Amino acid sequence: MSTMSWLQQKRLEYKPKIPRLLQDLNQVVFKELKKKKKCLDSLRPFFPKTWDQKPFGLEEVKSTKSSPLTVGVLFSGGPASGGHNVIAALLDGLKTIHPKSRLLGFLGGVEGLLQGSYKELQEKEVGFFRNQGGFDLLGTGRGKIETEEHLNKALKACQQQDLDGLVVIGGDDSNTNAAILAEYFLEKGCQTKVVGIPKTIDGDLRSEDIEISFGFDTACKTYSEIIGNIARDALSAQKYYHFIKLMGRSASHICLECALNVQPNLALIAEEKKSLEEIVKEIADLICLRFEKGKEYGVILIPEGLIEFIPEMQSLISQLNQLIQEGSSSFEKIVERLQDPHRNLFLTLPEKIQKQLLFDRDPHGNMKLAQIDTDELLIERVTQELKRRTSYKGKFSPQRHFLGYEGRACFPSNFDANYCYSLGLLASLAIRDGLTGVICSFQNLSSQSEEWRAKAVPIIELMRLEVRKGKEKPVIEKSLVDINGVCFVKYRHLKKLWAVEDHYRYPGPLQFFGDSSLIDSCPVILNK
Amino acid sequence: MSTMSWLQQKRLEYKPKIPRLLQDLNQVVFKELKKKKKCLDSLRPFFPKTWDQKPFGLEEVKSTKSSPLTVGVLFSGGPASGGHNVIAALLDGLKTIHPKSRLLGFLGGVEGLLQGSYKELQEKEVGFFRNQGGFDLLGTGRGKIETEEHLNKALKACQQQDLDGLVVIGGDDSNTNAAILAEYFLEKGCQTKVVGIPKTIDGDLRSEDIEISFGFDTACKTYSEIIGNIARDALSAQKYYHFIKLMGRSASHICLECALNVQPNLALIAEEKKSLEEIVKEIADLICLRFEKGKEYGVILIPEGLIEFIPEMQSLISQLNQLIQEGSSSFEKIVERLQDPHRNLFLTLPEKIQKQLLFDRDPHGNMKLAQIDTDELLIERVTQELKRRTSYKGKFSPQRHFLGYEGRACFPSNFDANYCYSLGLLASLAIRDGLTGVICSFQNLSSQSEEWRAKAVPIIELMRLEVRKGKEKPVIEKSLVDINGVCFVKYRHLKKLWAVEDHYRYPGPLQFFGDSSLIDSCPVILNK
Repeated sequence: MSTMSWLQQKRLEYKPKIPRLLQDLNQVVFKELKKKKKCLDSLRPFFPKTWDQKPFGLEEVKSTKSSPLTVGVLFSGGPASGGHNVIAALLDGLKTIHPKSRLLGFLGGVEGLLQGSYKELQEKEVGFFRNQGGFDLLGTGRGKIETEEHLNKALKACQQQDLDGLVVIGGDDSNTNAAILAEYFLEKGCQTKVVGIPKTIDGDLRSEDIEISFGFDTACKTYSEIIGNIARDALSAQKYYHFIKLMGRSASHICLECALNVQPNLALIAEEKKSLEEIVKEIADLICLRFEKGKEYGVILIPEGLIEFIPEMQSLISQLNQLIQEGSSSFEKIVERLQDPHRNLFLTLPEKIQKQLLFDRDPHGNMKLAQIDTDELLIERVTQELKRRTSYKGKFSPQRHFLGYEGRACFPSNFDANYCYSLGLLASLAIRDGLTGVICSFQNLSSQSEEWRAKAVPIIELMRLEVRKGKEKPVIEKSLVDINGVCFVKYRHLKKLWAVEDHYRYPGPLQFFGDSSLIDSCPVILNK
Repeated sequence: MSTMSWLQQKRLEYKPKIPRLLQDLNQVVFKELKKKKKCLDSLRPFFPKTWDQKPFGLEEVKSTKSSPLTVGVLFSGGPASGGHNVIAALLDGLKTIHPKSRLLGFLGGVEGLLQGSYKELQEKEVGFFRNQGGFDLLGTGRGKIETEEHLNKALKACQQQDLDGLVVIGGDDSNTNAAILAEYFLEKGCQTKVVGIPKTIDGDLRSEDIEISFGFDTACKTYSEIIGNIARDALSAQKYYHFIKLMGRSASHICLECALNVQPNLALIAEEKKSLEEIVKEIADLICLRFEKGKEYGVILIPEGLIEFIPEMQSLISQLNQLIQEGSSSFEKIVERLQDPHRNLFLTLPEKIQKQLLFDRDPHGNMKLAQIDTDELLIERVTQELKRRTSYKGKFSPQRHFLGYEGRACFPSNFDANYCYSLGLLASLAIRDGLTGVICSFQNLSSQSEEWRAKAVPIIELMRLEVRKGKEKPVIEKSLVDINGVCFVKYRHLKKLWAVEDHYRYPGPLQFFGDSSLIDSCPVILNK
């Protein structure tokens, strides 16, 4: 059996569809746009050199000339579908700009940059990664650029390779790094331009200009396939309540998108900020109501970040953090010092959750909120609540699922393949035209790709100051689900109907061939 | 948004491809085959009337005539993809045989039959279920036919509706029931013929005649998609060892099929009957070897039924069963009475597994082996083993996954859609031609569907006697992975290569449109 599956081979042949203006890179240039968003004044001290960076759009010209460019590229953070197309497009773009241009891929993320570990990318190798999933052409990592030493190492690596540009493919933290590097390079008189590409399946790197990050569409379509399969199983077997926890850190975009795709009986949206009691009551009410209709099964979606938004949990966590910081390390000590209502809440939590709240910390001492078994907590509480309701005579058989790694490295949907390829081309132009500290974006993404409007947005437009480890730092603000926005309001309007009657929708596996209606759709949350 | 997804709508239009001889049902008849497999003599007392049932094949004739038929159908057990096509084909077949024929669907499985709860099926409704996943047109259940009362109720239901035939779509237990019903109906002078359809994603309902049960192909392709996605994530992020437990009860067919599809670093095959120590050593060796190559990630497949085949666990479980039967109910009492080496083994198991071994019993008092967290046990043991190996300096970050409900109710692959539609047509012919106590089958399934050879096989050919609840009972023998068979030998030959070098193969999501190579494949384990 060949190591390449049939689909791998077939997808190599796909030609991404790109915006009209990107069809000949030598007949467009970036031009400053007049409309500029006001950045926060407080950011100015952090970005004296790039403070004045303007947004740019594309404009047609007769022809352009460029000397060969040398560009570095790296992946940062968790995989997202389409990353390889950014690289393929960078290679194609740079070669179109000048056949002697070179593309260097840093290995293993930011670490590779800091260590100057790279490989030169050629079509011979890149050709096998077109329209394929994963980040394995270069690997990725969670490396950060935090200290002067890091900055200096990055500078050295770029100078050593005489880079005209560095393309950072990453999420909010990585694009923050890109902005900081851009500033630092200017300060040090280094010619390397730094350009960011908005990546993250979570969909929380959004703004007025960035309609969605790449990878979100494929991840949600893959999760929706699986959730649809589980929903049809639930309806067929009528035995279980499926609690499906979905990756996505803080924001509930993935949960909302999947809910609109599959129409489950309930999707919790963390940004509603309900109390634990309210959530448990909502689920228990749903179960009782469905039991009256003869239904003892259902599908409930839970966003990974839920616990962070439950007010009393948030407040408990913050007291726990304080106690641990003050030096309390044993379970007993911490419980002893907790004050009510936190103490009371903490003691009613399942033992496993208590341990997770106390001991699962990342290297920075932060709680790994995502790894807390929120679904287990809800199931336990709902079980108790149903027992309390003596009028409830049904059974309650829950099944737990977690969807995450299944959706980050899969074959990109046509949307993500097109989007990423377009982003890569745009990045090559941004470097050619000397932009730095910008992130590439397209608007009008819910139209055909020919109609997308390209833009290079100053990264600092997305930033604000946050206190991290006791210090004010510029960071990109995470975009949360807007509970007054069209999509959530639409969901809230439909959820009563979906709760009792089963309106499950089965998107099925992502298709790559056949009717455009089937293969070319964009995320639902873009169709406003 | 419509309640039907685009794919749901498109799949309604698919026309299943069927064997040549089934293209005009009115020009074929079933004819007794000469070659008959010898059934076990010990079964004779259980099946005096059907003992002489012969296998039948199809033969072309000028034309046939038939009066209208009334046929009942039911789903039994867990969903498997393609079930709705069996029903669609039954309806089409019966209407072709005679336009006034009727098809009655019993609701909620065997329960529906016993209670006489059914609905008449018409194209108006069935039309929306063509090539769709799930069993939700009728629902299903775990009901069994065990007592004289059950048999009598089933008889009454069939007589009341004046059924010419009853089609049972189910696994080994359900087809056993079909054989018993066929015998009982003959004994009582009831005209209803009973025909079985081989269903189960587990793939353990196989014989010389039944190359594979329906649902296996779609389930394995869906799991393989997900495993491939996880493997590409593992290779990209290089952070985790993914332990993926796969549904499939006792037999490891699903695990083997997925391994051949995705080429993971290791796939445990329960039928190898390795000891716990051997398995832990094998995994730890793999991790150490990969660490030497700079790899701290990997993908390991675990069949759900593994624990049942580990000799010392088997023997522990049997002693536990005995102690519980003798009346020991508390944890302490049982531990006290356990003898070494069982006691020793039991005490070294994680607390959670100990509890599962003691308390997770089904209504018949059997251990729910499938629900035991074998993957957690292995992870704990491997962690200990790696700590013991002081020379190992790597990290070990495991992630657990369970794939089951994701793969049972999805859109059937073309293979399953064609196979199920053909099975349904064949069942309508079997009833028209008066066969009873048979299961429908096709041979040559790895060729194009035009070339499949139809057969109606006496169910008792698949049976043997087993002691259940202290009594000898006729049951269909579960087919296990043959560790001397071509497929396992092929895997064993390749596994060393896959262990260290990463040869992950990414099958991607099941495709329904495009090249035949992409959409028409059969399970790998059929290509011998």
